[in-house]
Amino acid sequence: MPRTLPTIVKATVTPILISDPPLLNVLGVHQPYTPRAIVELETDTGATGVGETYGDSEYLAVARRLAEAVTGLPLTALNGLRDLAYEKAGLTTDTVKEFDPAGLRGSRTNEKLIRSVVSAFEVASLDALGKETGLPVHALLGGKVRDRVEYSGYLFYKWAEHPADDAPRDDWGAALDPDGVVRQAQRFAEKYGFRSFKLKGGVFEPEQEIEAVKALGKAFPGHPLRLDPNGGWSVGTSVKVAAELGDLLEYMEDPTTGIDGMAEVRARTGAVLATNMCVTTFGEIAEAFAKDAVQVVLSDHHYWGGLQATRELAAVCRTHDVSLSMHSNTHLGVSLAAMTHVASVVGNLAYACDSHRPWQTEDVITEPHTFVDGALEVGDDPGLGVELDRDALSTLHERWLSRADMHDRDDVAAMRVADSTWTQPALPRW
Amino acid sequence: MPRTLPTIVKATVTPILISDPPLLNVLGVHQPYTPRAIVELETDTGATGVGETYGDSEYLAVARRLAEAVTGLPLTALNGLRDLAYEKAGLTTDTVKEFDPAGLRGSRTNEKLIRSVVSAFEVASLDALGKETGLPVHALLGGKVRDRVEYSGYLFYKWAEHPADDAPRDDWGAALDPDGVVRQAQRFAEKYGFRSFKLKGGVFEPEQEIEAVKALGKAFPGHPLRLDPNGGWSVGTSVKVAAELGDLLEYMEDPTTGIDGMAEVRARTGAVLATNMCVTTFGEIAEAFAKDAVQVVLSDHHYWGGLQATRELAAVCRTHDVSLSMHSNTHLGVSLAAMTHVASVVGNLAYACDSHRPWQTEDVITEPHTFVDGALEVGDDPGLGVELDRDALSTLHERWLSRADMHDRDDVAAMRVADSTWTQPALPRW
Repeated sequence: MPRTLPTIVKATVTPILISDPPLLNVLGVHQPYTPRAIVELETDTGATGVGETYGDSEYLAVARRLAEAVTGLPLTALNGLRDLAYEKAGLTTDTVKEFDPAGLRGSRTNEKLIRSVVSAFEVASLDALGKETGLPVHALLGGKVRDRVEYSGYLFYKWAEHPADDAPRDDWGAALDPDGVVRQAQRFAEKYGFRSFKLKGGVFEPEQEIEAVKALGKAFPGHPLRLDPNGGWSVGTSVKVAAELGDLLEYMEDPTTGIDGMAEVRARTGAVLATNMCVTTFGEIAEAFAKDAVQVVLSDHHYWGGLQATRELAAVCRTHDVSLSMHSNTHLGVSLAAMTHVASVVGNLAYACDSHRPWQTEDVITEPHTFVDGALEVGDDPGLGVELDRDALSTLHERWLSRADMHDRDDVAAMRVADSTWTQPALPRW
Repeated sequence: MPRTLPTIVKATVTPILISDPPLLNVLGVHQPYTPRAIVELETDTGATGVGETYGDSEYLAVARRLAEAVTGLPLTALNGLRDLAYEKAGLTTDTVKEFDPAGLRGSRTNEKLIRSVVSAFEVASLDALGKETGLPVHALLGGKVRDRVEYSGYLFYKWAEHPADDAPRDDWGAALDPDGVVRQAQRFAEKYGFRSFKLKGGVFEPEQEIEAVKALGKAFPGHPLRLDPNGGWSVGTSVKVAAELGDLLEYMEDPTTGIDGMAEVRARTGAVLATNMCVTTFGEIAEAFAKDAVQVVLSDHHYWGGLQATRELAAVCRTHDVSLSMHSNTHLGVSLAAMTHVASVVGNLAYACDSHRPWQTEDVITEPHTFVDGALEVGDDPGLGVELDRDALSTLHERWLSRADMHDRDDVAAMRVADSTWTQPALPRW
């Protein structure tokens, strides 16, 4: 019997600002508030779905145009979303690449912008479709192959507080040396049971960060450790760090920038290199893989274009015997649910996933996730298995309305509040 | 609200034999009957689904074991099917590759065997899930990006009839020279509206096949043409044929065997080379693409492992700027429906698909497809949009029961019926 497919009758994009601690990286520091966008879809059958993505102005502009365009489309029309987004945004794939100063996610291209927006609509559609059919998102993706998804504890050098008086506070204290990093890891381990740890580096001289990793190795013998200076090192420095840390690291993430630099580090050290900077779109894969520049790609359903796109990335990696892990930017529970569902269906996503989520004190879902033994259970509730907290959404949106100065993430500008002489560091810094 | 996922309560594998005309190829001729396997699933919610794949003994054995194993599993547990099939079949991925004499589909590996079986279970699951949810299979795969899928007319050198007295007859007559090939194409064009044509070559001296293609070019000026000798030529002969046919062909399919041979033909001619022989599993991709051995991969949801696997193949090809077309073996309407659904969701499947279906006079669905203007419409009926014809299934199964001599396709043995001196030709033949 032919029937009409469930049709989208309403699409809403809500920009929000979420509190963020003063986490340091190679370019500067997180602002007190980070923009995110919440996408909501509603169908003619009464199903609703939610998605989450970057909320910076350029993402928001595209998301709003796509929201207009999907109204009237079948809920299941996901394969055409990318082309539709390009069309409605008036963009093309021909863009000069430039380094993204704020995102630390490699080159800034229309492709990444478009895919980041599309991903939130795809996730919202799958959430709604799941609720419509009674199926969890993982089942709509062919079913989970694991019942729990392991996450790694994401360690940051950080200040005790933001320099601005009206900024949100946190109780984690400062972490500005090896001892501080170990204390942070211990708290993560106690609170959430994380077994593997990733340290965001590129903040201090490599020697200090090497010491921090060694201290972690001592405090957590045998636990998987990662170090990520976001391309902050030269090839020579990367080679030295690799020699110093040897087998302590399960992988070294973006020690240096660019495919050729990464390939040289690999060739000279044999170290396992991961990336969320030199391979961030499908167009960068062929050259990077051919040159053996990366051995682990950090998937991210946001900028790779959604959950199906993540599966496609996984297939490409599997085909080339390249491993897969998962990247994270500051995010809330909607994205965490999507990350968990997709990680549960991808067999070759064998590393513990990154997530900033433990650093966020706020959420837009009624029952925020709790990491237990360093992992999240993959549930069988329909859709993503989360429910939007409308009061929280409204509060965070109000904040967005009142803080136009925070509509775009800019870690360089945030650092300048503390240090007026700070300018965007040229990479490599060391 | 947590809920139980629809669960498979019954899985049936029915081997059948379908009539096949005496179509010639490099190894011999089609037998009068070709084995296929029909997989049926039923869930605790009353939904049913159907899939189709190769029916030869080794496929059948694995399919029967997998049928036992999926009973009690969630209908949506598709991502684990491959591992489950390996386990239940007692096979591993470590197999010495050998050339497949009967299938003309490249090396014979456990991986291809397992994936061919899994595909029928995946298709049947998606069909059942579609019926359960009211969604067409294409919607479960993210939605069609085209409303009609174009197919090419599949031309064969053929005898007027099989040498065996009790074999099925057809009214297509013989096609053993350029005129016969053109007449066949004309009938295909008139009856089904096919615009593009593929000639199965490797049967006669290359000079005659070149003449046949030239005759087709004259009869159908500007129409896309393909020639596929199934690896029947040496590199030198392939180079000569490419020089003779030049721009007449949209692609040349498997002129020679092996990645290195194909790469050499490509390097010496610049011809666009397609394959369903030297790249037939994911493990063969990296080397073939690195050597530029193929420019078009012929997908086939059967041996690539299903509809999701076809999407994954498409993603790998897109990542490497390699094009995608679709291969076909002798099949019925269940597979044709699956081929049409998956072709409708893959944006970069830009060539007209191959299908043997017009050569089959029988089917196991109540309303066999009709090609119009060389294409099939992509419908929105739930699942695959086909209904199993139980009487037809039963008749074809009875035939399978009564003809144990046809349980395995063997084009060499079939040729030996007409020519007792025939042995499996060593490739290249020319």
